[in-house]
Amino acid sequence: MVTVTVWNEYRHERESEAVAAVYPDGIHTVIADALGERGHDVGTATLDEPEHGLTESVLDETDVLVWWGHKAHDEVADDVVERVVDAVHEGMGLLVLHSGHYSKPFKRLMGTSCSLKWREVGEKERLWTVEPGHPITDGLPESFEVPHAEMYGERFDIPAPDELVFLSWFEGGEVFRSGCCYTRGKGRIFYFRPGHETYPIYEQPEVQTVLDNAVEWAAPGDGPTPTFGNTDPIEELE
Amino acid sequence: MVTVTVWNEYRHERESEAVAAVYPDGIHTVIADALGERGHDVGTATLDEPEHGLTESVLDETDVLVWWGHKAHDEVADDVVERVVDAVHEGMGLLVLHSGHYSKPFKRLMGTSCSLKWREVGEKERLWTVEPGHPITDGLPESFEVPHAEMYGERFDIPAPDELVFLSWFEGGEVFRSGCCYTRGKGRIFYFRPGHETYPIYEQPEVQTVLDNAVEWAAPGDGPTPTFGNTDPIEELE
Amino acid sequence: MVTVTVWNEYRHERESEAVAAVYPDGIHTVIADALGERGHDVGTATLDEPEHGLTESVLDETDVLVWWGHKAHDEVADDVVERVVDAVHEGMGLLVLHSGHYSKPFKRLMGTSCSLKWREVGEKERLWTVEPGHPITDGLPESFEVPHAEMYGERFDIPAPDELVFLSWFEGGEVFRSGCCYTRGKGRIFYFRPGHETYPIYEQPEVQTVLDNAVEWAAPGDGPTPTFGNTDPIEELE
Amino acid sequence: MVTVTVWNEYRHERESEAVAAVYPDGIHTVIADALGERGHDVGTATLDEPEHGLTESVLDETDVLVWWGHKAHDEVADDVVERVVDAVHEGMGLLVLHSGHYSKPFKRLMGTSCSLKWREVGEKERLWTVEPGHPITDGLPESFEVPHAEMYGERFDIPAPDELVFLSWFEGGEVFRSGCCYTRGKGRIFYFRPGHETYPIYEQPEVQTVLDNAVEWAAPGDGPTPTFGNTDPIEELE
Repeated sequence: MVTVTVWNEYRHERESEAVAAVYPDGIHTVIADALGERGHDVGTATLDEPEHGLTESVLDETDVLVWWGHKAHDEVADDVVERVVDAVHEGMGLLVLHSGHYSKPFKRLMGTSCSLKWREVGEKERLWTVEPGHPITDGLPESFEVPHAEMYGERFDIPAPDELVFLSWFEGGEVFRSGCCYTRGKGRIFYFRPGHETYPIYEQPEVQTVLDNAVEWAAPGDGPTPTFGNTDPIEELE
Repeated sequence: MVTVTVWNEYRHERESEAVAAVYPDGIHTVIADALGERGHDVGTATLDEPEHGLTESVLDETDVLVWWGHKAHDEVADDVVERVVDAVHEGMGLLVLHSGHYSKPFKRLMGTSCSLKWREVGEKERLWTVEPGHPITDGLPESFEVPHAEMYGERFDIPAPDELVFLSWFEGGEVFRSGCCYTRGKGRIFYFRPGHETYPIYEQPEVQTVLDNAVEWAAPGDGPTPTFGNTDPIEELE
Repeated sequence: MVTVTVWNEYRHERESEAVAAVYPDGIHTVIADALGERGHDVGTATLDEPEHGLTESVLDETDVLVWWGHKAHDEVADDVVERVVDAVHEGMGLLVLHSGHYSKPFKRLMGTSCSLKWREVGEKERLWTVEPGHPITDGLPESFEVPHAEMYGERFDIPAPDELVFLSWFEGGEVFRSGCCYTRGKGRIFYFRPGHETYPIYEQPEVQTVLDNAVEWAAPGDGPTPTFGNTDPIEELE
Repeated sequence: MVTVTVWNEYRHERESEAVAAVYPDGIHTVIADALGERGHDVGTATLDEPEHGLTESVLDETDVLVWWGHKAHDEVADDVVERVVDAVHEGMGLLVLHSGHYSKPFKRLMGTSCSLKWREVGEKERLWTVEPGHPITDGLPESFEVPHAEMYGERFDIPAPDELVFLSWFEGGEVFRSGCCYTRGKGRIFYFRPGHETYPIYEQPEVQTVLDNAVEWAAPGDGPTPTFGNTDPIEELE
């Protein structure tokens, strides 16, 4: 059982009727329920809680953090960002969803602008699995459609992923690297493109399957904790 | 529970007293016992069995194949090699040990010569974990020693690994990429350097831990089986 | 100045009027002319020449080999294939074009089936640059179109490229990894998807620019020639 | 001809007699001279100049920035760091030398701690080329020694390099990934381990060859400048 914290900005849903109609209890609740039903131990945290709900003790208990943010990236306090980044370095998994590409923790961990092209007209997206041997693809079909999506198009300004799992095709003519795996420090990071505040994408079973698989993949292991700094020689020196 | 088949050339042990003294029942037996004790369902197969013990039905039942060979690589029949390669492409895991770098299946899957430098004087080797977030390092220390080893040195003529997990230091002045992960087709391949027929390296707990972890890592998942060939358009064409 | 040999099966063009109408002197001639105009020293070779035109001495003089084949892959003699593979391992560059994905040298160097989805209805393709810092993209726009193309769709059964430079979008709903860089031995390999025998794709300036850049990128360098085999210790051993 | 700016902290050399004895005019001068002799157009910049010598106009004119820093990383102003990072994203090459692993620009571009083990007893280092097909190895032997070096040992807390070119062996028993290539944005980054303020390592011809090759490799190309943000559909939508 993996301990998951689903973090959501949770502003849209309280400010916009259109968003509230799709996610009345917030995007985090839909994701948390989906992961809980699949056997994970799931909590949630949101921007307007003290310390954004991401206290030291919450992060200490979290195996995998799921991140949704969109319009208030700048309101995330820098010390909380550093806390999240440190936790990833020490082994916590991080799933960054959709517009989270522009979140502070993701940009901080990537070291690039994470910019992309976008368009919001509700066009069709089709995701193709390019690495069917990867555990994040367990139980998926070769491809699946998101009927109405906000388009994200290349050039996506990220480091080349350690593993590229999904590619997206968009009706309007663009493509996108939609499922990207990274390791930073001891932590595993998965960026997953699909999702939006006014389309019920997180209700799709294929999307929920990906999130479930990604939580398993990103969960911390039991590898050695490296020591750093000044060290004595192991071998005798001349 | 992962179904493992440990394949061994099993010639040294029957021909040399020095080898038999270290591995009286064959290298495969020591490895199989170690994996069995760790909860895997393990069988063995050897070169001099019909079809080298790697019949279609054996491979169909095998999740992960462990390969040890040294002096009789050329005696492995090409049709069995193709059968192993096909099984990897379809998702079977493959662990290639030490001198298996020159085995037909490994060379066939890598597409390179897989050549290296070597020396057999029983010098010290120290393996360093370079990716402590990788599941193959679970339960390991930062580094561990093999007191007496055959040296393998760079340049190791392999494709750049998808993931590089261990590096070796040798007393005589060389280094080596000792833990290399690949995906070919749907199958996962792990090359692990340590091992030898006259040093009891497969009795070392750290080495057994790596084999156990690698079996888990290489076990087939449940990703989609791609379809290939002529295909109709999904979208309406102009 | 890079010495290039453009190899072509050169059967279609002599057997089909439709193909001859597009490439009257063979696909190789169009490619060779384009590379020659850009300053390379270019020769050609074809399947029906002795040793397919790829004698030892031709390969010894070749910096970069460009490979086009389609319907007669099986007629390429295995000893010539091994000669090409050896030359790549020793540093010769290899550009594999379009249907060359199924050529013997490419499959031999990749170690996978190199299968894919395909459809031949002349639909539109759009190539997107995903690594604008890569030298193969010099002088290119962010994206460019091939007005009428044979579709190739994922899953493309290749090892994950060392560098992924282009992605293709297809009108019919598929995507493809269209520009893939590999190193095998000392040789650099670039797979480039666009091209067809009945569409004048190799006349497109963007396509010619890619071929020119790829020739430069794949040209052999002056790195060390590794020594392999038994070697003395460099350091004094205890 | 590549325009290079060699940046040096330039404090040790003015404060310590031992350092001044090795690099009387500063480490930057030795590196700049070596690169100048090899045909590059080289300037220098140091910490105590206004804006650390890295004004907008200097960076605008710089193809490749070489970075040496050691004891005053924290004194590099954050706005200059961001300027350097932005320049890399836009295509400027960056060579990070030895203790520059802890510099602000490198950590910012990597997104990790960049920590490592170290020891300063003047032991022997031997660098092994693991990718002899890489242009950074042009003109090098298979391995070369640094007679007296500060040891850096794994775990080096960096993202897995896009290309790993050199590995180091140390007399005291450690190994290190000593030549690491990255692309961030359109810019190419090369981390090179050797170097020290009290050993004349930058006088070694092999080290100068690597720096020369790395400057060539990291020099900006002419790939497309991506556009980001809201974009119209290219294809007609239903």
